[in-house]
Formats: sequence, C-alpha cells, structure tokens
Amino acid sequence: MMEISYADYLQSAIDVAKDIGPTILKNYNSRERKIEYKGAIDLVTDTDKAVEEHIIKTLTGKYPHTKILGEESTKDGIYNWGNEPTWIIDPIDGTTNFVHRFPLFCVSIALSINKEIVAAVVFCPVLNELFTATKGGGAFLNGEQIFVSSVDTLSNAMVATNVGYDRTKAGIDHMLGNLDNILNQNVQAIRFSGTAAWEMASVSCGRLDCFYEWGIHPWDIAASTLLIREAGGVVVDPSGSDVNMEGRRVLCGGKPIVDLLSKLLLPKPSSN
Amino acid sequence: MMEISYADYLQSAIDVAKDIGPTILKNYNSRERKIEYKGAIDLVTDTDKAVEEHIIKTLTGKYPHTKILGEESTKDGIYNWGNEPTWIIDPIDGTTNFVHRFPLFCVSIALSINKEIVAAVVFCPVLNELFTATKGGGAFLNGEQIFVSSVDTLSNAMVATNVGYDRTKAGIDHMLGNLDNILNQNVQAIRFSGTAAWEMASVSCGRLDCFYEWGIHPWDIAASTLLIREAGGVVVDPSGSDVNMEGRRVLCGGKPIVDLLSKLLLPKPSSN
Repeated sequence: MMEISYADYLQSAIDVAKDIGPTILKNYNSRERKIEYKGAIDLVTDTDKAVEEHIIKTLTGKYPHTKILGEESTKDGIYNWGNEPTWIIDPIDGTTNFVHRFPLFCVSIALSINKEIVAAVVFCPVLNELFTATKGGGAFLNGEQIFVSSVDTLSNAMVATNVGYDRTKAGIDHMLGNLDNILNQNVQAIRFSGTAAWEMASVSCGRLDCFYEWGIHPWDIAASTLLIREAGGVVVDPSGSDVNMEGRRVLCGGKPIVDLLSKLLLPKPSSN
Repeated sequence: MMEISYADYLQSAIDVAKDIGPTILKNYNSRERKIEYKGAIDLVTDTDKAVEEHIIKTLTGKYPHTKILGEESTKDGIYNWGNEPTWIIDPIDGTTNFVHRFPLFCVSIALSINKEIVAAVVFCPVLNELFTATKGGGAFLNGEQIFVSSVDTLSNAMVATNVGYDRTKAGIDHMLGNLDNILNQNVQAIRFSGTAAWEMASVSCGRLDCFYEWGIHPWDIAASTLLIREAGGVVVDPSGSDVNMEGRRVLCGGKPIVDLLSKLLLPKPSSN
C-alpha cells in the first residue's frame, strides 16, 4: 500500500469539513430543529447526528484501515482509543450554542496514530475560520501561519473557560474558586464561549491567551491540541503535569501564562 | 423645519454604521495597532477614536440640532444627557475583544429625544449582523423581525453576563455570588462575551435568554434597550425595579426569565 502522508489525511479532513459546512449553516439558520435533551443541559440535534454520519462515512470510505473515536462510539465512559489510525470527531462542538443560534461552534476532526495527534482541522462555518495543522508542519488559520500569544501576566491576559455541566456543590465551588483566584490576580478579561474546540483554536492564533476546563472529552480537544502545539504553545493537565487526553481536564496556552495558571488552579476533588 | 421621522434618523445611523464597517474590519485584521491602557484592563485603540469621530461628524453634520453622548463627552462620571435629540454612541463596544482580535464587538448608535430612545442600530461587522429598531416600529436583524425568547426556567436558559472591571474583593464576591445563585438553579449555560451591546442585541433576537451586568454606561445599553423592548422583552434594574439608564447596572430578557433572575441577583453594596 502506498504510504499516506499526514498532509493527505489533513486534506481529506479539510474537504469533508468544508463539504458539510453549507448543511450546518442551513440548519443553523432554520427555525425548525428537533431538539433532544441529554441530562437537561446537553443538547443534541439532528444536524449533529447527520454531520457525524457524513464525516465518518466519507473518511472511513476513503481510508478503510482507520477507526473512529467519537461520542457515538463511546460506551460507559470508555473511549476505546487504540494505536490504530483513528479519526477523533466532534461533528458540532458547541451544540448548545448551535441550538440557541449563538454563532460560536465548530467541526473538529483529528487523526491519531499510536495515540498521537498527527493531523487536525477545526472549522467554524459562521465565521468561515478554517484552522489546520499537521505534526511538525505548523498551524494555520485560513492558510496563514499562526502562533500562540507571548502574554506572561494575568493583567494582560484574556482567559477562557466554561462553567461546564457539573452542578454539584463541589463542582460549582471548584469552578468559582478558580475564577476567584484569577480575578484576584487582576486578570484583564474572562470569556465563556461554550465551545472548547473553538476556544482552544482561538488560543492557537493568540486571540485568547489561555484556556482551561474540567469535563471535556478527547473529541473536544484532540484537534485543537495539535493546533496549539504546532503554534508554539503547550497543552497540559491543569496541575501543570502532562495532559491525559482521556482525563477530562485541560489547560493550554503559551508556556509563561500556563505556568502561571497551573499554580492558581485548584485540583477538583471528585474529578473523573 | 420639516419634521424628521424616527425612520429618517434610523436610516442615517444605519448608513454611517455600514459606511464605517470596512474601516473597522481592516484595522481588526491588521497586526499594527496602537494600544493605550486605561486602568490596565480597558483598552482603547486608534480605531475606536477614528470611528467615533466619523460617526459624530456625519450625524451632527446632517442634523445640526442633535447633541452627542459618548465616552469622550463624559467628564468626571457626569453624562450630560439632556432632553435635546441626542446621539448615544459606542463606536466599538467590546474594545478588549477588538484589540485581541476576538470576533465579538459592535458599533452601537441610539437616538434619544426627551431622554427616551427612539431609534437604534447595533452593527457587528465580523458577523455582518445589523440590528435595528425604532420606537413603536419593532426590532429587526438584517431586515427580519425578531423577538426575545419565551424561556421561563433557568434549566432551559442561556444566561449572559460579564466579569466587568471591578477587581475589589466586594466586587468579585458580588459577581461570584450571583453566578453561584444561578448555577444552583441548574442553569443550562452561562456565556461571557465581553460586549454588552452585542449581548443585549443577542437577547433581542432570542439566542441569549437574558443578560445582566454591573458597571455598564448608557452608551453600552442605549441602542440595545430599544431593540429588546421592541422585540417584546423588558429592560430593568437587576432588583426588578425600573432601570436607571445612568445607574451603571442592567437586567434584560423576556419577562418570565427576568422576573426569576431579579429574585436571585444580589444587590451590590458599593454599587454606584
């Protein structure tokens, strides 16, 4: 078999993301959408499912040796993520935004080989932003190379995070405790955008200085993790140690601000 | 003098907002921007000043009997807002976003007569969203009539607010106390977007269910206040009583969710 390059895989991911863009926008602009509730606050739409099916069918059709890691392939919290070439897919990251017609959401597609991300696409149809990266090949936004910011103090930093879905007292206290610590360091600004993949992509191009969140899944962060690393940034555990992609928590940005944040963020007692 | 209709004033505001859009986008996409710091966290750019000058010159040139209320016309916290026809202008609402190249920011232009808002434009150049309203004439997004949401429980609500600029202990505790109250009611989602005018415009079209913030100025909320009222919503003080446009605080949305929020939001001890 002819060897498939990272650039080949990337182009296929770009093609399928852009191909599905008009369908996503059409449904976004339509007022007729069926909504199911998952745990009352995580919304899934027909679009989400249709987009996922289209991406899976296209990519496994073209590359029959590849596997899929996504929400639908995950059972009982087990991701079944192996060494085989694996597409890690979030068809619409920011589903709650999508359902509310809030414009920030994206398609996220990554390819892992030996559990390492080697190609990544994050595509935001409303903003027409296409973020791409291959391992060792740099990160790009609409074809222009991008880099994380060099901000090294919180008073110059725009920090992104989200409240997530944990509504237990311990979960709320942990989340608010982290905000308190950051605000007490005179942070310039905090943003909650509700789409981890797009927020991390925004870190990769330097418009957000850092991002952290508890509760995320591999498909929320896989593509954007490569974007940030190829843009010169770091993706770690909120404690500052190596990130566990299946560990449900992440901290990322330029190294100086991440080092600073990792000292301020509290461990979550019940995490994972 | 021939009488000038609200629709005439509105059209002039639309024209000047759209006219300045390309300049804003060009500077947004440029990497060469001079930044001044105001209190370390409120950023002002050359663009902000140039856009304000252009809007003021155009509108007072066409309507010499009108006054201006804006950041530059305000001294020592006194707004000098009178009964004369007055343009209330925020050239770039969401300046921190603009400086960081975060895509959410807008031009906000309102006209008040006898201190009542009668015409309103909110224009977001990146998203190409033009919100418009005249008193008694309804609210529109890109020409399509819009309405606030009818959501009446927090578990179905996307609530927007911001951390603002107050970094005193009392200020931080008040902000976090409000988040705690809302999270404890199992709110569906919380967003911090950093642009009150756009967030309130987003309430007027129902994609955000409600918004509240302490620290805002009349130019942040004037145009969007008319948008929300013409879209069937209410704009009040966070306590639920009548809003004071010069009172530095606001709560808005559909009436059911605003009634609910007004019971949860804490008064700010040192407010104004």
